[in-house]
Amino acid sequence: MPAPIFADFKKLTAHAKDNGFVFQSSEIYDGLSAAYDYGPLGVLLKNNLKEYWWRSMVQLHDNIVGLDASIFMHPKTWKASGHVDAFNDPLVDNKISKKRYRADVLIEDHIDKVEGKLNKEIAKAKKRFGDAFDETEYRATNGNVKRYQGEMDDVAKRLATAMTDENMEELRQMLVDLKINDPESGKADWTDVRQFNLMFSTQLGNIAGEEGKLYLRPETAQGIFVNFLNVQKSTRQKIPFGIAQIGKAFRNEIVARQFIFRMREFEQMEMQFFIQPGTQMEWYNKWKETRMKWHRALGHPAEKLRFHDHDNLAHYADAAVDIQFDFPFGFKELEGIHSRTDFDLTAHMELSGKKLQYFDSETKENYVPYVLETSIGADRLFLATMSHALRTEMVPGQDDENNVRDVMKLHPAIAPIKVAIMPLKRNKPEIVEVAKGIFDELRFKFDCQYDDTGAIGKLYRRQDAVGTPFCVTVDFDTIEEGENKGTVTVRDRDTLAQTRVRIEDLVGFIGPKVDMAVLLAAGE
Amino acid sequence: MPAPIFADFKKLTAHAKDNGFVFQSSEIYDGLSAAYDYGPLGVLLKNNLKEYWWRSMVQLHDNIVGLDASIFMHPKTWKASGHVDAFNDPLVDNKISKKRYRADVLIEDHIDKVEGKLNKEIAKAKKRFGDAFDETEYRATNGNVKRYQGEMDDVAKRLATAMTDENMEELRQMLVDLKINDPESGKADWTDVRQFNLMFSTQLGNIAGEEGKLYLRPETAQGIFVNFLNVQKSTRQKIPFGIAQIGKAFRNEIVARQFIFRMREFEQMEMQFFIQPGTQMEWYNKWKETRMKWHRALGHPAEKLRFHDHDNLAHYADAAVDIQFDFPFGFKELEGIHSRTDFDLTAHMELSGKKLQYFDSETKENYVPYVLETSIGADRLFLATMSHALRTEMVPGQDDENNVRDVMKLHPAIAPIKVAIMPLKRNKPEIVEVAKGIFDELRFKFDCQYDDTGAIGKLYRRQDAVGTPFCVTVDFDTIEEGENKGTVTVRDRDTLAQTRVRIEDLVGFIGPKVDMAVLLAAGE
Repeated sequence: MPAPIFADFKKLTAHAKDNGFVFQSSEIYDGLSAAYDYGPLGVLLKNNLKEYWWRSMVQLHDNIVGLDASIFMHPKTWKASGHVDAFNDPLVDNKISKKRYRADVLIEDHIDKVEGKLNKEIAKAKKRFGDAFDETEYRATNGNVKRYQGEMDDVAKRLATAMTDENMEELRQMLVDLKINDPESGKADWTDVRQFNLMFSTQLGNIAGEEGKLYLRPETAQGIFVNFLNVQKSTRQKIPFGIAQIGKAFRNEIVARQFIFRMREFEQMEMQFFIQPGTQMEWYNKWKETRMKWHRALGHPAEKLRFHDHDNLAHYADAAVDIQFDFPFGFKELEGIHSRTDFDLTAHMELSGKKLQYFDSETKENYVPYVLETSIGADRLFLATMSHALRTEMVPGQDDENNVRDVMKLHPAIAPIKVAIMPLKRNKPEIVEVAKGIFDELRFKFDCQYDDTGAIGKLYRRQDAVGTPFCVTVDFDTIEEGENKGTVTVRDRDTLAQTRVRIEDLVGFIGPKVDMAVLLAAGE
Repeated sequence: MPAPIFADFKKLTAHAKDNGFVFQSSEIYDGLSAAYDYGPLGVLLKNNLKEYWWRSMVQLHDNIVGLDASIFMHPKTWKASGHVDAFNDPLVDNKISKKRYRADVLIEDHIDKVEGKLNKEIAKAKKRFGDAFDETEYRATNGNVKRYQGEMDDVAKRLATAMTDENMEELRQMLVDLKINDPESGKADWTDVRQFNLMFSTQLGNIAGEEGKLYLRPETAQGIFVNFLNVQKSTRQKIPFGIAQIGKAFRNEIVARQFIFRMREFEQMEMQFFIQPGTQMEWYNKWKETRMKWHRALGHPAEKLRFHDHDNLAHYADAAVDIQFDFPFGFKELEGIHSRTDFDLTAHMELSGKKLQYFDSETKENYVPYVLETSIGADRLFLATMSHALRTEMVPGQDDENNVRDVMKLHPAIAPIKVAIMPLKRNKPEIVEVAKGIFDELRFKFDCQYDDTGAIGKLYRRQDAVGTPFCVTVDFDTIEEGENKGTVTVRDRDTLAQTRVRIEDLVGFIGPKVDMAVLLAAGE
């Protein structure tokens, strides 16, 4: 089989729209930026990914239980968690264009621009010197390159320091010193830089003023922490135990980018694992390994997944690592694994006055548990899965170079449609009757599609493009006297092999191949 | 079996909390009113109910596809739908207590008070006259009763008229005329009545002022309408076809009541069925019947479900009916079936300038489809299901009146835990090993619980209380030589019958009884 030609990002978003995976939100009103809707096949794929996560966590673990907390929470939750005081971005308005920007992003864009110049120098030199070019040496000696690199390093260092300062004046000064202009108007008349809280807020109707202010949760984790005791008591769990939750979260990002990678409304799958203080590194390593195995079972190759240790730890963490995925725009965070210590439970305990402690019946001691978190973006997992699965390849076994197909090589257990059922002739009543009968039986077991709107070859390509692992075709052999009477062909998406299977054996033939339990066992 | 004693509402909410079904949101901060969290068993039950709905709609129907639109939508959506202009409640503040009320609810409460007096008169007379009492005659002749009835009728009529008036002055005058006082302060110093929009709004960070105003969707339906063309084109569906969606919606209710029945954040399961204009009554009747059958398959008896035609049709509807359920607080709306005509698509077409039309390839005509909607509250379905399932009953086959159990008679396919696995002795390693081995196998197939934290009788009661249909017990017979070696007991929640089943036959024995496909077939 020829090496797959990976689809580029633009092709991915077009494919997602045309095949009903992802649509721009409110497209008829020219779209709401950074908001997307999952279409008919997208919602099936997303639900399957969520089910894989949920069953791995909750169904397979006797010591992990589920939760579905509401998006609205008491505002004190976000005071305790630190989000009211510290969940900010530095914003600046351009006085001429009236446009609003993140000051740090403007500065990072400036660094990117310098890097662009540097790369241009390198490319020029490469072209000039050909095979003799030694990039390391050139970087160490060429004046222009050294100057660009020095400027990049200086600005990055100054930015890092400025971002730790509560006073935003230094950020504004950097905009001035670096002569950064509004990308829109080309002018540089900036307001002061001010901190902007990333939580969306709204107002309860029955309580006036600040008292009635509500936030849309910026993370699902806090719904787990405030319910720690309710869950522990109602389930009689003993430490170590975990609470898993899937749900929407909201962040008022100024710069939202890259399709469904960074949206203002997104879905998290978080599991908080409550442990004895002092055991956190053991669990941290355990969950790193477990989570990586889980991703690999989906069919994502080792070279597309890597660990990335955090350079700067968040205020609540004593260890943190990302699982990064090689997205079409490079390696980026897919999942985070964080040792959150007792930061959250202690903060809620102090602000609420409630004892959020665990009583160890063996040692007869009360203590505030430590927490090990695994947190993954469902939308990012969707994007990772789709971007890896979608490829344009030469049709296996057909060497003609014009014979190219789009195919989504999804793990069968998460494919939106498991089986497509097709009558070879839609004007042959005996064939249609059998095909409809098969659909009528299989639909209770699997997500199926009945398709008779084209020639079989075209219908196969259509199912390849959306990742359907099996196509069942009812043909003349099915209905005519002979050894194949009562059988149908089952066509495999990846090998294109066609197997004749008796109609009554279809569920048994296909079932185990698309069973979530098989994926669960592989990912455990 | 004795008739079940239905649990009252207070018992239901306590049971929900103690067993991890539903917790008050942010309870450690004394709760956020009208917001609730689904606990470990609640989220499983809710997910199963959602899955039953989703598979009924999407998996079983080749002409219904799914969607998952974002909560944030372009604000013009809500202009077109009428929510910006007309989704209002009449609010009034008491100047002394500073409390805020719905003026219409204050007046309805006044009517309830008068009805209370009327009922008291009737009860008194009943007591006085005994068997000879004729209520109809008494209502027609007694002066006090006639006066109360007259007052109730007058106020209700005046309220209905006042509510259709854009000017809220008449509502305020009613508060004055009826001498309605603030329930809190007992004083009657009211502000003007004003219209209050029920949509929660928030503000995008990157767009200043009114331009950046966003709403939290007050219904999921509009996400379907604005995507009508994207969905139809990507799926090549022909009319009639439907789009189904499950998701959160938000309403800034001033009075939110009755546990999870009316919350400010709630989950809808909506299906919009696109049809040819003129066929709406046919589909209206078809979906009425289909939806009622679906509810009945869950085990809800005929006497707890009824149709209730709308007295006043909403501006978008030409026919509308509720499926009401007999909740612990009486018959209330569980699901709505609405013939929405082409109101929504036409409104979006006019405001967006996009042609939201369907091309009929047979008649070669373009037209705006009509829409038939089925809309059900997932939280209400949860409450209906739990309130019907939970009962306190004498233990079957044990006539001793002290022998009472709490049991949730959930349909096995939606029970949060399908199988509990228990070792008869937790200090007998051979028994424990077999029990753990069974759990280890079954957990890939079903939601299971392993429980060894008490005597078997107590563990059975615990599983009864949360609706687990099957308990598997590993006992001495399982491990000792004899005809029962290698078998376990499977205990049935409802009959208490214990069947000995070979370990390797467990999946085959239990599987078909808890299979969602069986429920789906019954509800179709």
